[in-house]
Amino acid sequence: MSSFAASPAAVGGSSRAGDLFQLLRDGRPRTRAELAITTGLARSTVAARVDLLLASGLVAAVGEAASSGGRPPSRFAFNPGGRVVVAVDIGATHGVVALTDLACTVIDSHRRELDIAAGPRVVLDWVVAQTREILSANSRAFGDLAGIGIGLPGPVEHTSGRPTSPPIMPGWDGFDVAGFVREQLEVPVLVDNDVNIMALGEQATEWPEHDNLLFVKASTGIGAGIISSGRLQRGAVGAAGDLGHVRVPHAEEVVCRCGNTGCLEAVVGGPAIAAGLRDRGVPASTVRDVVELVRAGDPAAIAAVRQAGRDIGTVLATCVNLLNPSIIVIGGGLATAGEHLLAGIREVVYQRSLPLSTAQLRIVASRATDAAGVLGAAMMVIQSVLSADAVERLLSA
Amino acid sequence: MSSFAASPAAVGGSSRAGDLFQLLRDGRPRTRAELAITTGLARSTVAARVDLLLASGLVAAVGEAASSGGRPPSRFAFNPGGRVVVAVDIGATHGVVALTDLACTVIDSHRRELDIAAGPRVVLDWVVAQTREILSANSRAFGDLAGIGIGLPGPVEHTSGRPTSPPIMPGWDGFDVAGFVREQLEVPVLVDNDVNIMALGEQATEWPEHDNLLFVKASTGIGAGIISSGRLQRGAVGAAGDLGHVRVPHAEEVVCRCGNTGCLEAVVGGPAIAAGLRDRGVPASTVRDVVELVRAGDPAAIAAVRQAGRDIGTVLATCVNLLNPSIIVIGGGLATAGEHLLAGIREVVYQRSLPLSTAQLRIVASRATDAAGVLGAAMMVIQSVLSADAVERLLSA
Repeated sequence: MSSFAASPAAVGGSSRAGDLFQLLRDGRPRTRAELAITTGLARSTVAARVDLLLASGLVAAVGEAASSGGRPPSRFAFNPGGRVVVAVDIGATHGVVALTDLACTVIDSHRRELDIAAGPRVVLDWVVAQTREILSANSRAFGDLAGIGIGLPGPVEHTSGRPTSPPIMPGWDGFDVAGFVREQLEVPVLVDNDVNIMALGEQATEWPEHDNLLFVKASTGIGAGIISSGRLQRGAVGAAGDLGHVRVPHAEEVVCRCGNTGCLEAVVGGPAIAAGLRDRGVPASTVRDVVELVRAGDPAAIAAVRQAGRDIGTVLATCVNLLNPSIIVIGGGLATAGEHLLAGIREVVYQRSLPLSTAQLRIVASRATDAAGVLGAAMMVIQSVLSADAVERLLSA
Repeated sequence: MSSFAASPAAVGGSSRAGDLFQLLRDGRPRTRAELAITTGLARSTVAARVDLLLASGLVAAVGEAASSGGRPPSRFAFNPGGRVVVAVDIGATHGVVALTDLACTVIDSHRRELDIAAGPRVVLDWVVAQTREILSANSRAFGDLAGIGIGLPGPVEHTSGRPTSPPIMPGWDGFDVAGFVREQLEVPVLVDNDVNIMALGEQATEWPEHDNLLFVKASTGIGAGIISSGRLQRGAVGAAGDLGHVRVPHAEEVVCRCGNTGCLEAVVGGPAIAAGLRDRGVPASTVRDVVELVRAGDPAAIAAVRQAGRDIGTVLATCVNLLNPSIIVIGGGLATAGEHLLAGIREVVYQRSLPLSTAQLRIVASRATDAAGVLGAAMMVIQSVLSADAVERLLSA
C-alpha cells in the first residue's frame, strides 16, 4: 500500500489545540500521556495545549487515573457545561427560547404566543430580552454564551442570516436577522429555517448513526430538511427541501397558494385535509382538529390521513431514489395522528422506490417531536463554535 | 464580536505541511516569506515544511521574486506534474484508460471496445495491463502513480469499491473491484458508478464555481449525479441519483425493465423513444439513431425528443425543489441532439419549480461530453490523495 492510503487516525497527525479538542469531544477522559500516545505529539506540546483548553473552560479535569507510583496523573475530558447556547425556535404564532449546554442538553426553556407578522424588530427584541433573562435566571454570566441559534418559519439564506421571500412573514424579507441580534448581544448568531433545524435536532439527538437522513414536517405546510454525508444540505440559495410544491399526479385541478396547481401542500396540508372532511360533513379546520378526529376514531379522518400519507409517499419515493437516505423521519402536527400517516407513506415508498434504496430504509415518526426545533438551533451553534478551526481561533485570541 | 466568530483564514491557523500544501493548491507561486505572513507560522517552520513538499514532488520552485537586495527569494507552487493518475471509464461495451496529471489534465488516453459481461477478472486484467502500458509509453515511473480511479456502469458501494446488484454487469455483483486492482498494483484504487464520476468531472473541470450541481445522463438509461455543498453525494448505500425509475404521471401503463410501471426510463430512455418512432413508421432503434434523425430534421424525432425533455423536466422540477441546485448539466447521448431536449426540460422546470429556486438556476448541456467520465475518475483520485490529511501522511511516512 502507498503512503497515500486513507487512515482513520487523521486527526492524530495534527498538532493544533483545536484538533486535540476534537479528540476529546467524545467525552472519554484521557491523561496527558494517553493524549501524547494517541496524537504522536510531544508531551510538552500536549501539556501546553491542555492548559489552553482548561483555561477556556471547554475541557475540565475529571478525576485521576491509577498511579504506577507517585502522584496519580489527572484525566481530562470535554466539559459540556463550560459554555452555554441560546436556542430560539420561532413559529407563525409561537416562540421558544431555550438555554442548552454544549452537549445539546436543555437547561431551561420559555415558550410564549407571538405573532410573526408583528415584524422582525418586535420579535427579535423579545429574543434579545429573553436571552438576557434566561442567562440571569440560570446564574450564567454573559461571557459563558457561545452563540445564539434561531429557526424561522420560512426560507433563510443561511450564510447571511436573512429570510428570502418568506410567504408567512410580512416585514421579514431580506431583514438582517443575524446582524440585528449580534449588534445587541455581540456573540455569533446563526439563522436557518425551522424544518432545517428540526432535521438537525432530530438527527443529532436521536439518530446520530444516520448520515443520510430525510426529515419531513407534515403540518399546515409540508417541508423537508436534508442531511447527506452527515451535513445539512441547504442548496444554492437556502431553498432545498421544499417538498410542499411538488406536483402530485391525481390533483391537477387543485389550486395552491403558490399559484401553481396540484402541489402536495394544497392536497395534504392540514387545511386541505380539513376542507376535504368538511365536504363530507365532518367539522374540521386545523391540523389539530384532524388529529383529534383521528384519535377519536373518526373513519373519514383516518381515511383522509392515510391517503395524505400515500400522497406524501408518492413524493418521498422520488426523494428516496434521488437521495438514498437510510432513514426518513416524519414530524410536524400530522405525524402525531398515530400510525395512519406513516402507514400510507410506507405503502407507497416501499412500492415505488428501488429495492436497493429501500432494503435498509427505515421510515419512523419523530422522536424529538416539539423539541426538535430548539435542539437543532442549539446543535447548529454547537457544530459551528466547537469546530477545530473555531476552537483554535478562540484559544489563540 | 466574540473570538468564536467565523473567519475565512481558517487554514492559516494550522501548522501542518498538509495544510500549507492546501494553500499552494491554487497554483499561485509564493515565497517562504509570503507563506509565513499568510499562515502566521515562523519562517523556520515554513522553510522546513516547504523542504518536505519539494522532496515529495508535490511542490516545485517556479522562478524568483523581485529582490530587495541580495539573492532573490525563490517562489514555490503546486506542481501538477509531480505525480500522475490513471483514470478508467468502463461502459457496457467500451473501456477508456487515461493518464492525467494532478491538475486533471489528460496526458494520454486509450479506448477500446469491450464487453462488460466478460466479467470483472477479464475487464480488470485489461485495466491493470493498460495501466502499466500507459505509464511506460509516457515515460513515467510506477512510483509516480498516485492512484487509480474507476467508473462502472452500475451502482457501486463507494466505501468498499464493490458493485451492488448492477443490472447490466453479470458476474460483478459484490466483486471486490478495488481490492482486485490494488492487489496487483499496490496504489489507492477508488471506484464509483459512471454517472457520479461524470458529475464530478463536469463540475471540477467546467463549473468549479457551482457547489450545488445536478448532472443528468440521458441516454439508453437515465441517471443523475448530485453535488451538494461541493461534495458528491452518494447516499446511504451508493444508490443516490437514480432518476430512471421515478414514475412520470401520464405513462402509468408502460412496463419498465425494473418490474414497475411508468418509470421515467421506460418512457424517455433511448430505446423507448426509438420504439415510439417505429410506431409512427420512422425506423430507429438506438440513441444514436434518434440523434441522427433529429439532426436530419425529422419532425417526429424532434417532437419525440422535445417531449422526452418535458418528461425529464417533470422529474427535475421535483429535484430542483428538493435540492436547490444552481446548475443542471444534461449529458449523455440524447443531450447531443441539439437544443430540443434542453428546451423541453427548461419549459417544465421553469413552470413547475419554485421561483426562489429557479431565479438563478441554469440548465445547460454538458461541456465535458465524452471526457466527463475519465475526468471525474481522475478527479475522484486527486481529491482523495491531495487532501490535507493524505498529504500529511505522505510527508510523515
